[in-house]
Amino acid sequence: MQFHHHGYLSTEPREKPAAGIGLDRPDELPDTMDVMIVGSGPAGMTTAATLSSYPDVHTRLIERRDGRLELGQADGIQARSVETFDYFGFAERIISEAYWLTEMNFWNPDEENPENIIRTSRTLDDPTGVSEFPHLIVNQARVLDYFAEFAELSPSRMKPDFGYKFVSQTIDEDHEYPIEVTLEITTGPKQGETRKVRTKYLVGSDGAHSPVRQSIGRHPIGDKSDHAWGVMDVLVETDFPDIRTKCAIQSHDGGSILLIPREGGYLVRFYVDLGAVDPNDGGAVRKTPLEEIIRHANEILHPYTIDVKNVAWWSIYEVGHRVTDKFDDVDDGKENEKNPRIFVTGDACHTHSAKAGQGMNVSIQDGFNLGWKIGQVLSGYSDPSLLHTYSGERQEVAQNLIDFDKEWSSLMAAKPEELPSKDYVAEFYLKTFEFPAGFMTEYKPSELTTDTVHQDLAKGYEIGKRFKSAKVSRVSDTNPLHLGHLHEADGRWRIYVFGDQHAPADSKNKANVFGEWLGNDANSPVVKYTRKNTDVNSLFDVKVIYQQPKEDVELMQTPRIYRPIVGRYRVSDVNNVFAVLTDDNIFEAREISGDGAIVVVRPDGYISTVQPLDATDAIAEFFDGIFTAQN
Amino acid sequence: MQFHHHGYLSTEPREKPAAGIGLDRPDELPDTMDVMIVGSGPAGMTTAATLSSYPDVHTRLIERRDGRLELGQADGIQARSVETFDYFGFAERIISEAYWLTEMNFWNPDEENPENIIRTSRTLDDPTGVSEFPHLIVNQARVLDYFAEFAELSPSRMKPDFGYKFVSQTIDEDHEYPIEVTLEITTGPKQGETRKVRTKYLVGSDGAHSPVRQSIGRHPIGDKSDHAWGVMDVLVETDFPDIRTKCAIQSHDGGSILLIPREGGYLVRFYVDLGAVDPNDGGAVRKTPLEEIIRHANEILHPYTIDVKNVAWWSIYEVGHRVTDKFDDVDDGKENEKNPRIFVTGDACHTHSAKAGQGMNVSIQDGFNLGWKIGQVLSGYSDPSLLHTYSGERQEVAQNLIDFDKEWSSLMAAKPEELPSKDYVAEFYLKTFEFPAGFMTEYKPSELTTDTVHQDLAKGYEIGKRFKSAKVSRVSDTNPLHLGHLHEADGRWRIYVFGDQHAPADSKNKANVFGEWLGNDANSPVVKYTRKNTDVNSLFDVKVIYQQPKEDVELMQTPRIYRPIVGRYRVSDVNNVFAVLTDDNIFEAREISGDGAIVVVRPDGYISTVQPLDATDAIAEFFDGIFTAQN
Repeated sequence: MQFHHHGYLSTEPREKPAAGIGLDRPDELPDTMDVMIVGSGPAGMTTAATLSSYPDVHTRLIERRDGRLELGQADGIQARSVETFDYFGFAERIISEAYWLTEMNFWNPDEENPENIIRTSRTLDDPTGVSEFPHLIVNQARVLDYFAEFAELSPSRMKPDFGYKFVSQTIDEDHEYPIEVTLEITTGPKQGETRKVRTKYLVGSDGAHSPVRQSIGRHPIGDKSDHAWGVMDVLVETDFPDIRTKCAIQSHDGGSILLIPREGGYLVRFYVDLGAVDPNDGGAVRKTPLEEIIRHANEILHPYTIDVKNVAWWSIYEVGHRVTDKFDDVDDGKENEKNPRIFVTGDACHTHSAKAGQGMNVSIQDGFNLGWKIGQVLSGYSDPSLLHTYSGERQEVAQNLIDFDKEWSSLMAAKPEELPSKDYVAEFYLKTFEFPAGFMTEYKPSELTTDTVHQDLAKGYEIGKRFKSAKVSRVSDTNPLHLGHLHEADGRWRIYVFGDQHAPADSKNKANVFGEWLGNDANSPVVKYTRKNTDVNSLFDVKVIYQQPKEDVELMQTPRIYRPIVGRYRVSDVNNVFAVLTDDNIFEAREISGDGAIVVVRPDGYISTVQPLDATDAIAEFFDGIFTAQN
Repeated sequence: MQFHHHGYLSTEPREKPAAGIGLDRPDELPDTMDVMIVGSGPAGMTTAATLSSYPDVHTRLIERRDGRLELGQADGIQARSVETFDYFGFAERIISEAYWLTEMNFWNPDEENPENIIRTSRTLDDPTGVSEFPHLIVNQARVLDYFAEFAELSPSRMKPDFGYKFVSQTIDEDHEYPIEVTLEITTGPKQGETRKVRTKYLVGSDGAHSPVRQSIGRHPIGDKSDHAWGVMDVLVETDFPDIRTKCAIQSHDGGSILLIPREGGYLVRFYVDLGAVDPNDGGAVRKTPLEEIIRHANEILHPYTIDVKNVAWWSIYEVGHRVTDKFDDVDDGKENEKNPRIFVTGDACHTHSAKAGQGMNVSIQDGFNLGWKIGQVLSGYSDPSLLHTYSGERQEVAQNLIDFDKEWSSLMAAKPEELPSKDYVAEFYLKTFEFPAGFMTEYKPSELTTDTVHQDLAKGYEIGKRFKSAKVSRVSDTNPLHLGHLHEADGRWRIYVFGDQHAPADSKNKANVFGEWLGNDANSPVVKYTRKNTDVNSLFDVKVIYQQPKEDVELMQTPRIYRPIVGRYRVSDVNNVFAVLTDDNIFEAREISGDGAIVVVRPDGYISTVQPLDATDAIAEFFDGIFTAQN
């Protein structure tokens, strides 16, 4: 966290100086805005929080409830989401209050006494250390609270507009604010009245039945019928020893429970499988009483019992595996004719079982992906055609999720005798864990992601995948720290310059040569696209990592681009120069070539390209494909 | 963090359910109260935060300013303080915003060109890993903010009373509220008026000139004259490469600077030595202008320069090494005749240079030490004679601090030729670092600290010193975690029961035998002193640690005292049973005997005793010496 460069601030450093719309943001929903987001769930809230870092963009988030979410719904937080929370500055706080998932246990019928369940395996949740962050379980209300706090402390001072429901929209491209949105007021004295407002972009984060999605004629495609679970968040007295460990429990007659311990040390969530829903069911399954779910849970847990002392929340959860045909309002094949105006994200795009704990996580990445793209377009840095990449990138991720979850949930619903072996489910879990942890996303080549010609220069930074952090030594203050944890959700691009074998103080070190180019050449993206009236690091966060130990680096002799002069008082930011830790070498950990490399990372943490240190033309060309002329 | 056992809470889990005075706490300062604390600095705020966990005690903290502290003053946070912040639940947050001190560098005159300084050594700040927490630098205003937040979210819902100044006090032991305090109102329409209120106890945390201390006739004893420094918090442009590393800088003509980088990546504090103050100085040194301090700093830094761009705060800091003769109102030797009513803490007890970064830290421990003792007495658990131990324990710590700081600051002020070798200061720093890190405090035997007859059973838990955390495996959720991080500042005593070599499921395991005694025997402190209408873990937090791996532990067969039934819904807290981590064994790390041991830890984290697992009589006797009869 860096601050005080505009002068000393005594209070909460997480509160950024107000700017742009944040200087005079209307409390009430205005008649016109740049972006309207519908729905304050994980997808909508992440888009809002991401856009809050673009104070030149006036974003509003509407929610039909009259206040924050209180309980229920999603609770699984994969490590990729915790990495994302770290970008937003609240990882350490939510980690401290959440349940940490270390192991998952599998229970199956005892072969000798099939009416009894026994623990058949224990599996480590992250056996390979794919992330330095834990896998968490916490109510989504808390996740939303932290995103809301980030947005409110952002330069935009953004807050949700509660009490509005999306009704319909029409588009007139000749208007400055092309989309006219009709809203219904859901609370207060004007309840039931409608209101019309105008916006440049509209984002539907409005759930599985998404009215925004319906308004653009997109459809969820997939399962014909739903599957049902009884879900309950409860306090219980029990003799079941794994009540605080995540478990998949399968009984001899095919009943199954997914048991998810929750934050705080007492609460636990049960997903009790109620089977496939007959299309002619007519809503009967939704009438399953709580007592029936508890009774069924006790049957499955035999010989153990639960005595339910308090029910915090319960529901019948009924859903099929479906992916929306496209995530924006431009039909397939028409991308060259027009640019998108309306998007759908989160559950509006993908629905599936809760078994793999994926929904909230994929929704957060939808929101993050879309947020920075809209921010960059509306701030005037990129052409609106960039927005095609949202559906282009995220629809494939959603399809992969649905495929994975289908396999996973059918495995969990299978009777023991239907499986190849009794450890089959545990083995599948182990083999595929990188997917549910959120790290399989790999964007295909596009204007945002190059080919992999130079991938060998940094094998540990896979182009199209997320930038995996590793430890470095910061020269200025000698701190060992995680390079990736310096990435903030501030809309900036990251350019990591890994030096070659020349001494750091040698002007021939290619990181120094590249740094001089990046800071001074007319073709450098930093020179070309950073606006004259802003700090030199306002668009690109440039960091150099030398392959030598810190004692070999002469901080004050490094190229100026690595020590940008910033802020009201024009002082140097000397915190961007790094060296290797001798006992934990990032060049080894991420297989970076001795000849060095340049790694470019998007605002949402995905790697756009890996290039050699002398590839100034390739770097210039890459950014020319994304940014529009400035200055 | 544990919560939800009274039912599901959707909001901030750090907010505890209100109780006692917190249910109906008067907003305005009332006419009578149990405890009045004077001054909202680190000592006073820590006492207040500690007492806020005792909702049966009505504590008020008065402050003559009209609001929170904004800037200036202390900034060094030793690792022991960060451990303490962890008890109060804000370590991870303050760590994320503070400066982390990893190395300290020493600069001295270049022997070949004495007018130039050169870096002569780099020293690791914590070479031995004395704590898992870092050494931090952050403005004390932030520390106070976090303590204030803790107090406000506590069961007592405590807030400071701003705008009152202590004037005088008188004591009448026959009155229910024996101390009458005269206050002056310092802000608002009644400014300048006086007001009289009554309290049972009075705590003077009112600084070096402490009017409370003066009112009980105590005196600071020590240096006849003061030493002066020019202190400035500044933003600078500089070519000095260690501007973001803590440095002791000594120039050839005897000038010296202590350079402390500050939170946020830009701000830096300079302590420029202005020498001993002539007793006949008449305040002249205090008139040293800022320009003179900057000029002097530039002289010392030659050949480097600083260009000061912004001054956040500056001051002339003038102080001598002094310790107050006693920290309460009972004269030496009169302890059997009366119990203390009035205490002094923090700067009111000890003054010294800022060079070792100690002041705020020792003050925090003063406040923590006193807070739980008053809380325990006023809650009716201990006799008021317990309060003698505050001065008894903390005065020696203060004396040690003064002795250390005297040596350290005279070394730092010495000219190079006056020292035995050029690395002498760096070597002294390394040799003694455990002191400034806050870990040398070792309380002498008293009713709170036993002899060391059984110390060999757990050599790593030194009786009288702080409980040093180590990692364990929690059986319930398989989480590897730091045992010490589960210690909350909730006023509870900790009883750690380390098992012997019998299998955990074997009823002969002495940890199980002891657990049965602790949970059921009439002589057990838990049975004797826990009030009937409260949870069984409300006074004693009992944890068992088996020396076997978690797979060997049958959670639901452990003695009930390790799985207390708690809260409104009477559910088991199954989170108190631990096993060793096979790759990081606490029995090895803390040298715990294979025969096991009992380790008793006070509410402020210091070890009271180490006993064998069969020493039920010794455990009973120890607590009988502290607690009074209940039920």
